[in-house]
Amino acid sequence: MGVQEHRSLLKDIGVDVDRHAKMMEMGLESYKAQFMTQKNRPEAMKYFDWFMSEMQGQRIAEINELRKNKKPAIGAFCIFVPEEIIVGSGGACFGLCGGSPATIADAETELPRNICPLIKSAHGFKLQKTCAYTQSSDFIYGETTCEAKKKTWEILNKHHPVKVMNIPHMKREKDLKLWKEELFEFKEHIESITGEKLSLEQMKKGTKIVNEKREALQRLDRLRSMNKDVIPISGKDGLFVTQMGFLDDPVRYTKKVNELCDELEKRVEEKISVFEEDTPRLMVLGTPFAPPNWKLHTAVETSGGAIVNEESCIGHRYYKDNVNLDDVNNEDELMQKLLDKYSAVDCACFTPNAPRIDKILQMYKDRQANGVIYYTLSFCHTYNVEAHLVTQALEKEGIPCLVIESDYSPEDAGQIKTRVEAFLESINFKKEAAAFKKKQN
Amino acid sequence: MGVQEHRSLLKDIGVDVDRHAKMMEMGLESYKAQFMTQKNRPEAMKYFDWFMSEMQGQRIAEINELRKNKKPAIGAFCIFVPEEIIVGSGGACFGLCGGSPATIADAETELPRNICPLIKSAHGFKLQKTCAYTQSSDFIYGETTCEAKKKTWEILNKHHPVKVMNIPHMKREKDLKLWKEELFEFKEHIESITGEKLSLEQMKKGTKIVNEKREALQRLDRLRSMNKDVIPISGKDGLFVTQMGFLDDPVRYTKKVNELCDELEKRVEEKISVFEEDTPRLMVLGTPFAPPNWKLHTAVETSGGAIVNEESCIGHRYYKDNVNLDDVNNEDELMQKLLDKYSAVDCACFTPNAPRIDKILQMYKDRQANGVIYYTLSFCHTYNVEAHLVTQALEKEGIPCLVIESDYSPEDAGQIKTRVEAFLESINFKKEAAAFKKKQN
Repeated sequence: MGVQEHRSLLKDIGVDVDRHAKMMEMGLESYKAQFMTQKNRPEAMKYFDWFMSEMQGQRIAEINELRKNKKPAIGAFCIFVPEEIIVGSGGACFGLCGGSPATIADAETELPRNICPLIKSAHGFKLQKTCAYTQSSDFIYGETTCEAKKKTWEILNKHHPVKVMNIPHMKREKDLKLWKEELFEFKEHIESITGEKLSLEQMKKGTKIVNEKREALQRLDRLRSMNKDVIPISGKDGLFVTQMGFLDDPVRYTKKVNELCDELEKRVEEKISVFEEDTPRLMVLGTPFAPPNWKLHTAVETSGGAIVNEESCIGHRYYKDNVNLDDVNNEDELMQKLLDKYSAVDCACFTPNAPRIDKILQMYKDRQANGVIYYTLSFCHTYNVEAHLVTQALEKEGIPCLVIESDYSPEDAGQIKTRVEAFLESINFKKEAAAFKKKQN
Repeated sequence: MGVQEHRSLLKDIGVDVDRHAKMMEMGLESYKAQFMTQKNRPEAMKYFDWFMSEMQGQRIAEINELRKNKKPAIGAFCIFVPEEIIVGSGGACFGLCGGSPATIADAETELPRNICPLIKSAHGFKLQKTCAYTQSSDFIYGETTCEAKKKTWEILNKHHPVKVMNIPHMKREKDLKLWKEELFEFKEHIESITGEKLSLEQMKKGTKIVNEKREALQRLDRLRSMNKDVIPISGKDGLFVTQMGFLDDPVRYTKKVNELCDELEKRVEEKISVFEEDTPRLMVLGTPFAPPNWKLHTAVETSGGAIVNEESCIGHRYYKDNVNLDDVNNEDELMQKLLDKYSAVDCACFTPNAPRIDKILQMYKDRQANGVIYYTLSFCHTYNVEAHLVTQALEKEGIPCLVIESDYSPEDAGQIKTRVEAFLESINFKKEAAAFKKKQN
């Protein structure tokens, strides 16, 4: 409905409205089937259900209202994009569509088949003109975190303005120094849209808004994962809320996430869980789930497991660190603090990336999880190769781990479910054996 | 035989001698079948036939003799490794084994299946201890040109010392500045092996030696490709000679390549071609062919085509530029000239990489070729994605182009041959049509 209402706007920004309407309809149906059928969902999820229906409707209208006032609208595919600067300028930063198999065939007219489905999907959305976010963006802010993206920008740039942020391979002091220059350059890009100098106060305000968003997500993460006996919200809902954080207005979103957290807090107190007792608690590691890629979560949570945390970029990696605004008295100091935050991101694109392994082991301990799934999108070399070192470390600690590589096609859903079921069975067996042993002693 | 003779040395450097001997035997048989059966080979190929048999025998003995005298032996997988510095120090720089399917199953115990076969093969050689070059190397000098390699170094480093050169994503002035620092750092690594300061004169001498090697290869390239009516050497032999340039002693090698060129020059004068008249002349673009990966060349040259040039890293990209030693009066000036040469390499790892396309079009024109094959190793995202822009440019110029993606398995050899045959047929058809049209006018 949201889409219908905004049909003329969508047309104005170049959306192929008929095709778009059909895709949104399918997306909504899939959402209803996978989300609305869950039992005992928190009341506060209603907002996110509404947002789902207005994701490419009212939210697009809001973004284009900003644009009318010369505020920037920047599309991104990576959590390295400094949204603080965009929000500070009064604009909108959003993740572009890239989670659907429906655009991949089109993308493959220009891209190889054997690269990451996220990149292909996103490229296909531009070729099809079926993503209202892509169509609304002043430019796409690409980066060099993976080579398939790095090279795709050269092609995508023929269809839409793309600027590229140079994220280094390493985190030596000299690499970070260049990275900091990218932040200054990005600020200039933003100023070229608004036609105004962005002040320190504006950027600090933007940072504060994004910090608050991240704090709300950290709170949600704790509520999802830190109470051993209660899981007050499904992993799928948790993921969906996180996904929407890349699209929604940050102030409204933060408010709504906090309202959800208030409700979840009560649930924890009252021990209201959406899963049965003793449901195995799984952590998911690896690459991001862009909506509507809910395949793994659906497989796990319809097989007797619960996902309590995503270590992914659409997940913990995105919100784990905040920008410290103490003692920030000038632009250079602010940029340094932004850099401190962003360079703490433990993306597999860096070499070496050992802190990621330490973090994962600590997260696992803190969450008292029962196993992990290492998930990679197909052909994502960095996370795929790094899987060896991560799973080796997990094995050493006796942590059960299932490695899944998948794309967006529905074809492997059955196979994934079978593998997840077997994995959950082995976890349950271990839990029972441990309980039995404890009883014996 | 060469291998048997040096059995105790191979054992000393940790080679699995039995397995190694078996592999070398198979490699030699394959070489005999694919190379020695060619008709009318130049006499001067005898040296390279001999080198093939001593590749992991006498050459390894020579390298280990250098090592006894504290000269560095550095293994590499990329033409960005500044061999001038190694040669200047009196040491040896060599490409490591990475062209065989025989080691891939072992590599896949630690690496994903869907990454480039070159990386897997090389990693497997280390796990199997069946590459005498790897075993002889003081350290492997890795780089960040592709993410699968970048991440594999972290794993390979557990089995063999690896140092990593940070090759930037872009070629802006500030990126090049950091790259230059990598050259200085590399020099320090070399000095830490010799225990001595490397002088400017030594480095200039090393550069001169490598310049002469590149000049000999440029000469070979011209003789192979620049005479429209005569192809005095097969593409397979041309490729093999180039491949050996990554292993042999550079001074001896240069001499032998020039002897070959003398013979080829005579052949050109006397119009002695190893192919029939009107054989379609193909250029190959893309990723390198590491020995014993001769699959594509064999397919083309047993199907009525000739390969006159490889644009690859084991090919034109390697030797196209020399280091200008004019006005080099201090170390900084030398490093700058080295950087100028290396940063002129148009690897698909860079973004943007437009000069590569201009170069390809010019090369095609200069060589009066009849078509190109864009060859990529499977899962090589950079060359694979860049193929779109390259083939688009070729199409615009009406240049026939066949895109082939392949790994090291023999399984697709038949399919490749069929596709090559069809491609050659279409080229012949076009040539005949053009000739007919010319006749009509």
